Amino acid sequence: MKSNRSALLLRAAVAGALVMSMTRATPAADVVRHSLGPNNNFPIARAVEVPAGKTIIFHSGMTPSPLDPKATQGSPEYWGDTKTQALSAFGRIKDSLDNLGLGFKDVVAMTVYLVGDPAKGGRMDFEGFMAAYTQFFGTKEQPNLPARSTVQVVGLVAPGMMVEIEVQLAK
Amino acid sequence: MKSNRSALLLRAAVAGALVMSMTRATPAADVVRHSLGPNNNFPIARAVEVPAGKTIIFHSGMTPSPLDPKATQGSPEYWGDTKTQALSAFGRIKDSLDNLGLGFKDVVAMTVYLVGDPAKGGRMDFEGFMAAYTQFFGTKEQPNLPARSTVQVVGLVAPGMMVEIEVQLAK
Amino acid sequence: MKSNRSALLLRAAVAGALVMSMTRATPAADVVRHSLGPNNNFPIARAVEVPAGKTIIFHSGMTPSPLDPKATQGSPEYWGDTKTQALSAFGRIKDSLDNLGLGFKDVVAMTVYLVGDPAKGGRMDFEGFMAAYTQFFGTKEQPNLPARSTVQVVGLVAPGMMVEIEVQLAK
Repeated sequence: MKSNRSALLLRAAVAGALVMSMTRATPAADVVRHSLGPNNNFPIARAVEVPAGKTIIFHSGMTPSPLDPKATQGSPEYWGDTKTQALSAFGRIKDSLDNLGLGFKDVVAMTVYLVGDPAKGGRMDFEGFMAAYTQFFGTKEQPNLPARSTVQVVGLVAPGMMVEIEVQLAK
Repeated sequence: MKSNRSALLLRAAVAGALVMSMTRATPAADVVRHSLGPNNNFPIARAVEVPAGKTIIFHSGMTPSPLDPKATQGSPEYWGDTKTQALSAFGRIKDSLDNLGLGFKDVVAMTVYLVGDPAKGGRMDFEGFMAAYTQFFGTKEQPNLPARSTVQVVGLVAPGMMVEIEVQLAK
Repeated sequence: MKSNRSALLLRAAVAGALVMSMTRATPAADVVRHSLGPNNNFPIARAVEVPAGKTIIFHSGMTPSPLDPKATQGSPEYWGDTKTQALSAFGRIKDSLDNLGLGFKDVVAMTVYLVGDPAKGGRMDFEGFMAAYTQFFGTKEQPNLPARSTVQVVGLVAPGMMVEIEVQLAK
């Protein structure tokens, strides 16, 4: 009898724990990155899954620092070309992420706003941007790729700026 | 003896509850979609709430496949009009979502980047885009609507492309 | 005696599990807003962290209501200038957030799409937008700042519209 009562109490305890465990938080699973496909090596992810339990970080769009602050403001010499501007913007993002205890490996999504380059007939210099991007994403040291959209806009906050990069991250 | 056995069972129960609490996920509440209002039937949601416990999926912007790959690259014949391009982009998104075990019903947010259509005086062909969109969102079979923003940009990654669609999803 | 001791052990186990569930469960941590830096007072956050356990709300891009619906549709008199349009769009967002039990304080990210203002030589009227924005963000009453990107696009859904504001929120 006593042993039966103990068993019943134990079952009640286990049942109670079960109910509690269903309302309890989970240690977050890992971020999952889906590639574009077997025949597509373009270095972005098709989609990135951020499971429940992760902190999501919304980062402001980052623009470049002037290449030559003594040049005429807004001139090509002042800002540099698209690749130069992208390297500067990525550098500023890296500094910010360092400060937050994050890195490019934690980027899950990226929006790239490029302005038409007069030196490229007014088209955005997509190749120039990619030459900068591929130094930080899809490398041996940092293989994690974000979901990404890239569009050509009319302008950014300052005349002559041709690159703004916005990222979302998960940790 | 019985006391020892009870103690062992208790330890097992507590250990079991601990393990469960560490591996069990929280059943997430449902996504909540708020309509634009009683007098507004435009088929987007005003806002979509993604409760804690959901996986959020960031998807790359998707552009169309060429309508006629044999036509002059970048020409209207190559890409087709806005509606055609939107149908192609949505088709590619659908394929991707199928592959991820997701569907249009899981889309919580969408950003639509349209390029001005020369055949529409350089304005984006919003009606053409909507004619494609409404085949997949706000239908009897798929009534779920995403929060959405739609803007006209200067250009996309390839000349002649007039549609890029980016989605975020929750499951 | 033995039965009593078993019962006590059971109660201790259940109590222990309760305590764990109360400390382990996700009372969601607060949103963390990182400032641009000690020498930068521009009223946006560099980055905003949304911890696990929060509901994330994706809101549709909001455009202004006409300033003077009797004026020629699409004219500057119809829509008003950039500041006027931004105030209208923020007002509509405020109404929507009120309805959702949210406020500007809950905004974690913002994307601002501005169209070039003919009265400003075709450049976006960034100052005009900021004059509206700073009435709602970074004030004594509402100091919370979102991560933000601002770009100039070609056009929005209706001719003459110069402001679309999209926000994401967390609660």
